[in-house]
Amino acid sequence: MPLGKQELTFLREVLPFWGRLTDAQREAVGQKSVLRHFPAGAPLHSGPNDCAGLYVIRSGQVRSYILSEEGREVTLFRLYERDVCIFSASCIMKNIQFDVYTQAVEDSDAILIPTPVYRELRESSLAVSEYTGQLLSSRFSDVMWLLEQILFMRFDRRLALFLLEHADGNGRLKATHEEIARDMGTAREVVTRMLRYFQSEGMVRLSRGQIALTDLKKLKKTASRIQRRKS
Amino acid sequence: MPLGKQELTFLREVLPFWGRLTDAQREAVGQKSVLRHFPAGAPLHSGPNDCAGLYVIRSGQVRSYILSEEGREVTLFRLYERDVCIFSASCIMKNIQFDVYTQAVEDSDAILIPTPVYRELRESSLAVSEYTGQLLSSRFSDVMWLLEQILFMRFDRRLALFLLEHADGNGRLKATHEEIARDMGTAREVVTRMLRYFQSEGMVRLSRGQIALTDLKKLKKTASRIQRRKS
Repeated sequence: MPLGKQELTFLREVLPFWGRLTDAQREAVGQKSVLRHFPAGAPLHSGPNDCAGLYVIRSGQVRSYILSEEGREVTLFRLYERDVCIFSASCIMKNIQFDVYTQAVEDSDAILIPTPVYRELRESSLAVSEYTGQLLSSRFSDVMWLLEQILFMRFDRRLALFLLEHADGNGRLKATHEEIARDMGTAREVVTRMLRYFQSEGMVRLSRGQIALTDLKKLKKTASRIQRRKS
Repeated sequence: MPLGKQELTFLREVLPFWGRLTDAQREAVGQKSVLRHFPAGAPLHSGPNDCAGLYVIRSGQVRSYILSEEGREVTLFRLYERDVCIFSASCIMKNIQFDVYTQAVEDSDAILIPTPVYRELRESSLAVSEYTGQLLSSRFSDVMWLLEQILFMRFDRRLALFLLEHADGNGRLKATHEEIARDMGTAREVVTRMLRYFQSEGMVRLSRGQIALTDLKKLKKTASRIQRRKS
């Protein structure tokens, strides 16, 4: 069943290259893409042999993770509404030599642009090729952030300490990310990124100009954590 | 000074998009690129504010690393002759939000295609855009490999053990990567990748159908290392 009008409008809003496609290409995307529902816990894709296509998250939350031989999982990043999952189409990219698994965290809906359709777009449109590179850069940045946290493990601790020290008696803190960044001598982006991570872990709830501490125990644990690796 | 004939031939061999550039574009690359020499230890580029352009390694070896606030370095990957350094042109890519440093390990020569030249190529040529995505995918794969080693830390130990157990009295082992992979129940690519890493660390020397163990002490240390992180 081809996509409905609502889904097409959604794709037009989310995909920056939409306006640079030909009518025929837009038609192909609309005809061949499908809206899929994933109950919480269901896999969107599982490792290297699974290459369904590009998933555009319509609602809910998914996470991508790697898996050790012993079955241990490590989350790489989370995707929310309007985010796009590129690793479920990694077979169209040369040189991707690692296995990523993606699963719905909450009940989620995602529009699947199938691999053959996306491949054709990317091979014929400079805009789509550039967009693919940007997606890759974003996920690369996510992973580098994780790597630095694991290797250097500094800023999460400092920020958790800061939040605990500055919150009022109700566990609330009135401050913009800009103000916190200034106090901590870092960039706003760094603060925003870490706060979002804290939020995704249930440690804080963010709203405009205010941060609510929602898991004091976890925050205290983060604040007291020593650097894990030295060598 | 524009590039000489030798350097142009080298670029034509190394850059897969060369044949798909226009004459004017090839002319611009030849006129505006420069051959640079880096003595061992010299930086090719240093963090986010340094965006000279794409370096094509002509000879020698460079390494890219991240740097903690305290000045601790962690090597992400090494580049050799015919490899291309993309992070020295990261300002042309949206969404790259991390800082990488690159330095010559040995005396090295590299051809610099300046940022404005490369930017123009990428914005007008689908082949260059695709190539940029491939470079990014390769480096992404390098970093994921490193991350998995740090998090799961398994295969280097197993392979070091295997090499020590199977080498003859002269520290030599006659086996193809395929054969080792079969013996260890993994893929040839995994073995090749780790052996190249061992070689870059001076632990082995690879030649056709043969592996020479060149640093028994380091190999033994790797073989006995326990998993560093559990959580």
